[in-house]
Amino acid sequence: MPLSSADLDKALAYADAHMSQSLDRLRDLIAIKSISTDPAYKAECQRAADWLVADLQSQGFDASARPTPGHPVVVARAPRIVGPKVVFYAHYDVQPVDPLDLWNTDPFALTEVKQPSGEVHLLGRGTSDDQCQMLTFIEACRALRATTGGLPINVTLCLEGEEESGGKNLPAFLASARDELTADVALVCDTDMLDPQTPSITTMLRGLVGEEIEITCADKDLHSGMYGNAARNPNQVLAEIIASLRNPAGSVAIAGFYDDVKDVDATTMASWQSLGFDGAAFLKDVGLSIPAGEQSRSVLEQTWSRPTCEINGMVGGYTGDGFKTVIPAKASAKISFRLVADMDPDKIRAAWRAHARARIPADCSVTFTEHGGSPAISVPTTGRYLQQARAALADEWGRDAALRGSGGSIPVAGDFKRILGLDTLLIGYALSDDRIPSPNEKYNLRSYHKGIRSWIRILAALSA
Amino acid sequence: MPLSSADLDKALAYADAHMSQSLDRLRDLIAIKSISTDPAYKAECQRAADWLVADLQSQGFDASARPTPGHPVVVARAPRIVGPKVVFYAHYDVQPVDPLDLWNTDPFALTEVKQPSGEVHLLGRGTSDDQCQMLTFIEACRALRATTGGLPINVTLCLEGEEESGGKNLPAFLASARDELTADVALVCDTDMLDPQTPSITTMLRGLVGEEIEITCADKDLHSGMYGNAARNPNQVLAEIIASLRNPAGSVAIAGFYDDVKDVDATTMASWQSLGFDGAAFLKDVGLSIPAGEQSRSVLEQTWSRPTCEINGMVGGYTGDGFKTVIPAKASAKISFRLVADMDPDKIRAAWRAHARARIPADCSVTFTEHGGSPAISVPTTGRYLQQARAALADEWGRDAALRGSGGSIPVAGDFKRILGLDTLLIGYALSDDRIPSPNEKYNLRSYHKGIRSWIRILAALSA
Repeated sequence: MPLSSADLDKALAYADAHMSQSLDRLRDLIAIKSISTDPAYKAECQRAADWLVADLQSQGFDASARPTPGHPVVVARAPRIVGPKVVFYAHYDVQPVDPLDLWNTDPFALTEVKQPSGEVHLLGRGTSDDQCQMLTFIEACRALRATTGGLPINVTLCLEGEEESGGKNLPAFLASARDELTADVALVCDTDMLDPQTPSITTMLRGLVGEEIEITCADKDLHSGMYGNAARNPNQVLAEIIASLRNPAGSVAIAGFYDDVKDVDATTMASWQSLGFDGAAFLKDVGLSIPAGEQSRSVLEQTWSRPTCEINGMVGGYTGDGFKTVIPAKASAKISFRLVADMDPDKIRAAWRAHARARIPADCSVTFTEHGGSPAISVPTTGRYLQQARAALADEWGRDAALRGSGGSIPVAGDFKRILGLDTLLIGYALSDDRIPSPNEKYNLRSYHKGIRSWIRILAALSA
Repeated sequence: MPLSSADLDKALAYADAHMSQSLDRLRDLIAIKSISTDPAYKAECQRAADWLVADLQSQGFDASARPTPGHPVVVARAPRIVGPKVVFYAHYDVQPVDPLDLWNTDPFALTEVKQPSGEVHLLGRGTSDDQCQMLTFIEACRALRATTGGLPINVTLCLEGEEESGGKNLPAFLASARDELTADVALVCDTDMLDPQTPSITTMLRGLVGEEIEITCADKDLHSGMYGNAARNPNQVLAEIIASLRNPAGSVAIAGFYDDVKDVDATTMASWQSLGFDGAAFLKDVGLSIPAGEQSRSVLEQTWSRPTCEINGMVGGYTGDGFKTVIPAKASAKISFRLVADMDPDKIRAAWRAHARARIPADCSVTFTEHGGSPAISVPTTGRYLQQARAALADEWGRDAALRGSGGSIPVAGDFKRILGLDTLLIGYALSDDRIPSPNEKYNLRSYHKGIRSWIRILAALSA
């Protein structure tokens, strides 16, 4: 049933009046160390799921933490009503906090720090990615229920605990819960605004292939004085493979990598150009000035519409204090590829592995470990729900919502399409300077507050 | 005063009869975690020095632990007699033990393990490098004193605590203690035998330049989804630098690197060839089959007489369990260069830094940290003391002692020459399969026992 304008105003006023309580709940959640990628924090992930279940039950949701082979998925359904149905997705797990010594505050103690500009930063691991974003929606539901007795449309939440660690159990879960999750559209809160003033709906997302490579040369660590030159050094082999991945002009040098890559259509490109994205300022913000990718492409293309190959981690030999003249037995790297439309994750994975394998000396060996794979997605910009949400965002922020691309990957959007047949509206209030996944991650208090208000408006708009 | 043949036999018999007590002392020393490169073990290094001082004092040495800006140097002088004087050098510090999970026994609990061959392995961190080697000499002194009331020549011990961490305080110490350390020849026990049957005097040693490089790109860690392609990845920059250090045919690719490198003279090469060194077996021992260095050079040349460039450690980004899609701000590597005769450590250091600097993008930065530098050394093979020691080794082992080269670096030999004007006899009983600096480091019990006996014979021979 369409929400009346008076009820909308009541819900917005409730959200404004209860920000302090909203922040208290956020503080509780941030204190839980739900680092999904590190097995040491398994119990903390369960604790985060339990916290969400309890909070959602207190609002009248039928909520439970569903076990998976990894961390649980929280599913919560509001009482059924007549009207459209949405599935809302966010994730409750967070990135590791290392290097801890670069944090200015305890990463698990939510800290509000007022900036010279007047903006307040909410500091803590997982603020921007994705606890604050997740709570903007949950708090919006709370305000609507508190003021109108329920939600204006059917809402089911699906909150993942493995987004930061490959998310490999989610597809099977979605398939098993297909009946519960059937909906008209999915809402995902895990993306950025174009800038602090411009609300955004992300309509293009890159896919992701995560790979780990481990190279073994000798059968033990060796002394570089005794074996130097003669014994193959896996650090050298790995470095040569990594160096071979990029051409001097910045493109990825794996054979066939660009075979299925097409240029963005002219309409989309024109719309992106109208956004006034400043590539130089984007790089300057992080202390850089020279775009590192394909020299023939703008920064915006490099990050939104061109595939990548990034070395997320590499290690071999002695890396502690001081010096140790070792030739290690092994060296390894974690490498991710961001994919654009039409690139096949399996094909890219196979091409990368063949590229690396061809560079392994005959007396050495290599193993590969898969860390997730998902294709790029693209959301039609003409749909009814997208238009309704876009209008609601404009009401809240006082300007049109940008339809943007993004370099990131939200594999669940592809899963929703493939497994549940759902289009996804990617709406988030994070900012590019939120320092994910760095030390001192933050979320603007304004994003938290106006994010809650935005979801209230969007749920109202979708009920029309 | 020349030692009589009867006294020599008494001392050898004493050593044989007291092996159990010798091993107990070794056990005490191995239990001390004297990892010099890691500041966490500073007190343990002091404890090892104190242990040696107490042991040497109990044998009648005037012994003390001399402070340096780093770990102490133990100096011990036997009561003065008429006759030649030697300075004996070894080091009491050990390498780190990581990766600890690959050790089969506690690295700091000396463990005797009988092999199928009948040989007994003494397992523990520092057994081969250099605690057993150091004690072979100290136990030889004990046997001589216990049976003859003193030593047949003047002996001063100089035991370092920073050999495994760059040894940067030793040269200044040697200069400050020049008067005490004046001698006719230096003895160093920190080298290998050619094989388990062949005693060896090492007459050529490579020099060492240790360097650490740290590359900084962005001013914080970035999300590879948001910044991939556009932001320079220091892992990629570092890998490209490392890859650029070797030519496809295995030589080092730094400009000017080989400028001062000469081929070994024909006599030395002929003598090396007569040693029957089996390069294929040397590599097979560690699970390899393809020499990685200059393709035009034998394994023996690659490891004894050609300079190296080895990546001892490298790290950047997320290297824990799981996956994290980060573009790190920094990446770093520890790189060592082994030098041969006539190469200048300062010149090589400068050439390497210029090579790396030329490959740093203009918006990134680089810092270098020095970890020691020493030239190669070469000991004349015609000297009186070398001939006496060689004969003594032949008496103990029943075959001629090899005059060998070595890929390792013993910077103190260069320091003794430069600062004290001393030639050094490098005599050790370690074996190439001792697994330094790997997990499960060992020393053969036979090396320990016959090493003690060898030093008794050498001290006797030098008194003639």
